[in-house]
Amino acid sequence: MPGRSSSCRARKRLRRPCGSLPRTRKPNPVTPPLPGRDAARPPHLVGRRHIPTISMEEYALRRECVSAGMQASGLDAMCVFYPARVAYLTGFHHVPTERPIALIIGSSGQSSLVVPAVEKEHAESATSVDQVRIYFEYPGAEHPMESVVEVLTEMNARPHRTGADHDGYIPYWGYRGPRLSDLTGVEPFDSELIIESLRRVKSTAELECIQLSCDWAVRAHRRMQAAITTGKTEMECYTPAAEETLFEMVHEMPGWRPRGADDSGIIAMFVAGRSTAMPHGFVKGHGIQPGDVLVSGAGANIDGYRSELERTMIVGEPTPEQVRAFEAMLALQTRAIEVMAPGVPAGEVELATVRLAQELGVEANLRHHAGHSIGLEGHEAPFLDRGDEAVLEPGMVFTVEPGVYLQELGGFRHSDTVVITEDGRRVMTDYPRELKDLIVSR
Amino acid sequence: MPGRSSSCRARKRLRRPCGSLPRTRKPNPVTPPLPGRDAARPPHLVGRRHIPTISMEEYALRRECVSAGMQASGLDAMCVFYPARVAYLTGFHHVPTERPIALIIGSSGQSSLVVPAVEKEHAESATSVDQVRIYFEYPGAEHPMESVVEVLTEMNARPHRTGADHDGYIPYWGYRGPRLSDLTGVEPFDSELIIESLRRVKSTAELECIQLSCDWAVRAHRRMQAAITTGKTEMECYTPAAEETLFEMVHEMPGWRPRGADDSGIIAMFVAGRSTAMPHGFVKGHGIQPGDVLVSGAGANIDGYRSELERTMIVGEPTPEQVRAFEAMLALQTRAIEVMAPGVPAGEVELATVRLAQELGVEANLRHHAGHSIGLEGHEAPFLDRGDEAVLEPGMVFTVEPGVYLQELGGFRHSDTVVITEDGRRVMTDYPRELKDLIVSR
Repeated sequence: MPGRSSSCRARKRLRRPCGSLPRTRKPNPVTPPLPGRDAARPPHLVGRRHIPTISMEEYALRRECVSAGMQASGLDAMCVFYPARVAYLTGFHHVPTERPIALIIGSSGQSSLVVPAVEKEHAESATSVDQVRIYFEYPGAEHPMESVVEVLTEMNARPHRTGADHDGYIPYWGYRGPRLSDLTGVEPFDSELIIESLRRVKSTAELECIQLSCDWAVRAHRRMQAAITTGKTEMECYTPAAEETLFEMVHEMPGWRPRGADDSGIIAMFVAGRSTAMPHGFVKGHGIQPGDVLVSGAGANIDGYRSELERTMIVGEPTPEQVRAFEAMLALQTRAIEVMAPGVPAGEVELATVRLAQELGVEANLRHHAGHSIGLEGHEAPFLDRGDEAVLEPGMVFTVEPGVYLQELGGFRHSDTVVITEDGRRVMTDYPRELKDLIVSR
Repeated sequence: MPGRSSSCRARKRLRRPCGSLPRTRKPNPVTPPLPGRDAARPPHLVGRRHIPTISMEEYALRRECVSAGMQASGLDAMCVFYPARVAYLTGFHHVPTERPIALIIGSSGQSSLVVPAVEKEHAESATSVDQVRIYFEYPGAEHPMESVVEVLTEMNARPHRTGADHDGYIPYWGYRGPRLSDLTGVEPFDSELIIESLRRVKSTAELECIQLSCDWAVRAHRRMQAAITTGKTEMECYTPAAEETLFEMVHEMPGWRPRGADDSGIIAMFVAGRSTAMPHGFVKGHGIQPGDVLVSGAGANIDGYRSELERTMIVGEPTPEQVRAFEAMLALQTRAIEVMAPGVPAGEVELATVRLAQELGVEANLRHHAGHSIGLEGHEAPFLDRGDEAVLEPGMVFTVEPGVYLQELGGFRHSDTVVITEDGRRVMTDYPRELKDLIVSR
């Protein structure tokens, strides 16, 4: 079959077009938002905490790095359609809809953002691109992709020297439209990796955002764990905990707002019972019972950046089978974290957990790899997966979450957010991992 | 430019491959969940309310209709990658991730669902497809798209007689992979419309789900409106109202659970002040002030089906300018609803509001078309838009929401969910639209 070899595109080794994003060896210290701290502060200092953010200068620098990568590839222009990449390069976070949004970057660094009229004021106030180009509506009297082609024409972009991260807008919510190649006559150069190679290694400001996200996740999770009560439904336990933490975020970080498609700002939830054997199941609301295995998830949105904190908890005295599964899971996660360091292949992290799972007799209970990158999106590349050819570098941020799943017993999974450092790794989610701290006794 | 005419693909007139989905002239009566009703019921009857759902028979019937459409197009098989279409044809609702999920349907009706190991139990329990094919993980030792090709091979699907709704998995969250055509050697037949023509007209069961979604949206919105208080932030007003309604849903509809990517179950929120001039802005948390214009949104998830109820509210005594903008918006929405009937072009609904906006002197304050379809997704095709060539049919469900936006004053928009009936249209969201009922006086 022609082109079959391209199934390995996902595993290409990445170029780094530009190494000039601000990165320090250690992130600047971020004041952690400890519960109750404000109670002891003078009123005029409450809420004066430093809130990390991505500056307009950093967004401009990212676009310059992309331009450098484009020049190296001989491109006149590049179209960016994927929403998180548009946000990464502009600071314009939007909910994707059927109305196409595209960023077009020229090789000399000029930038144009094509948006529908509903996003006009939002786009103009939220980004430092050179031009915001408005079309009225989708589908509209003229298809919005025509505006993208007009911008390319104004930039004198030759079709065979035009790149894109997708051949046209990525369909969503009833969108239909021509591919970019239908309009230019030439398939665009696949330039997704020019951006993705930048996104994989986080800058100092990004690490500050992710660290603060972790700190809020920890606070929400503590509150949620304390609220778990048998007889109540999961939602009744976690929704108030998430809400109270959200209000604290609003009050303690004036000006803070969630960005991006997940605009709830904070997540704190868990599922109980046998449904935890389905890692991505939706079974909720059946009421917590003694003997249940609970698997939680918490994270917060800091200038669009996310984190992940998950814990397996057990209601009441754990059975010997539960203890065995829990301890196996904990050993796998510990092994994965220990292996992580600069220069280690991402795939080796998964394979190390698989080898240990074989020793422990739980290999058949694995359902997924050891983790994924995290940043502007909940899941990003590269993955801690045997099929990923990435090599770990300082500044990469991963979730580490090997899981053990037993259909009759439940699912056992912790997830921590871990940053690769110059000399190893650092766990960013500071929360107990041992069984003794994760038993719910109410 | 070759292929430029394909920019009109979005506006092709649709075929209906099969008209056999169960549709009655009027939806069966659904018991509306009125607040307080359960208080008067004997305890053993509480929660015995009928909860509409899509049956496995209806999912199978939808696949049969697709097979009929495939036969008419001469297809051996069709790959379905778009998540809402997979849910529509199987009942398997999933959160899209970087792990590809695909439904493959054969021309004789056989069906195979390709999912990662994390979705195994969920997929096997949630759908009646003939086969659930498991791959371990993305990226994995073998790319998951290989599993899709294996299923096509087993179905004896000839490449030039293979259809798809997208040429490969739709990229999300760090996914990269080959196009389907890279693996088969032939670009797949664009068969998206075989499914979409079915989705556009709702069945009796779908209308029941959407009606109950509307009823819960109304209840949540009443509670939220009653909770609005000056000085509080928006979140502090609406989050408890949404949460209390969610708990009522859990208790009054045993077995109910939200389905699909939006698994919060209920939405009830609003934005205040000048930020309402940005229809899709994210500015929240600044505290409600007298004189603010509030624009709300509410909806609930009933077996994956959604609805939309939005209201413009004013805090304190409205100014003459606010009254003028509100009344113009209300007149536009009334006009749009009055125009809607079977046989009317979808574009005519928008154009009727544009003509009235010209008469009222607010044409420059429009920022979007008059509405969109709604069902399994928050926005679906067709659109009430001058560029959409669809013609209204009984069973189509639209939001109707022309808006008037003034940068210094705020945004003014109601949205109601409206079904096209045999003899006209029916508003499904039963909530006051007049200014006198939408003034917040606390």
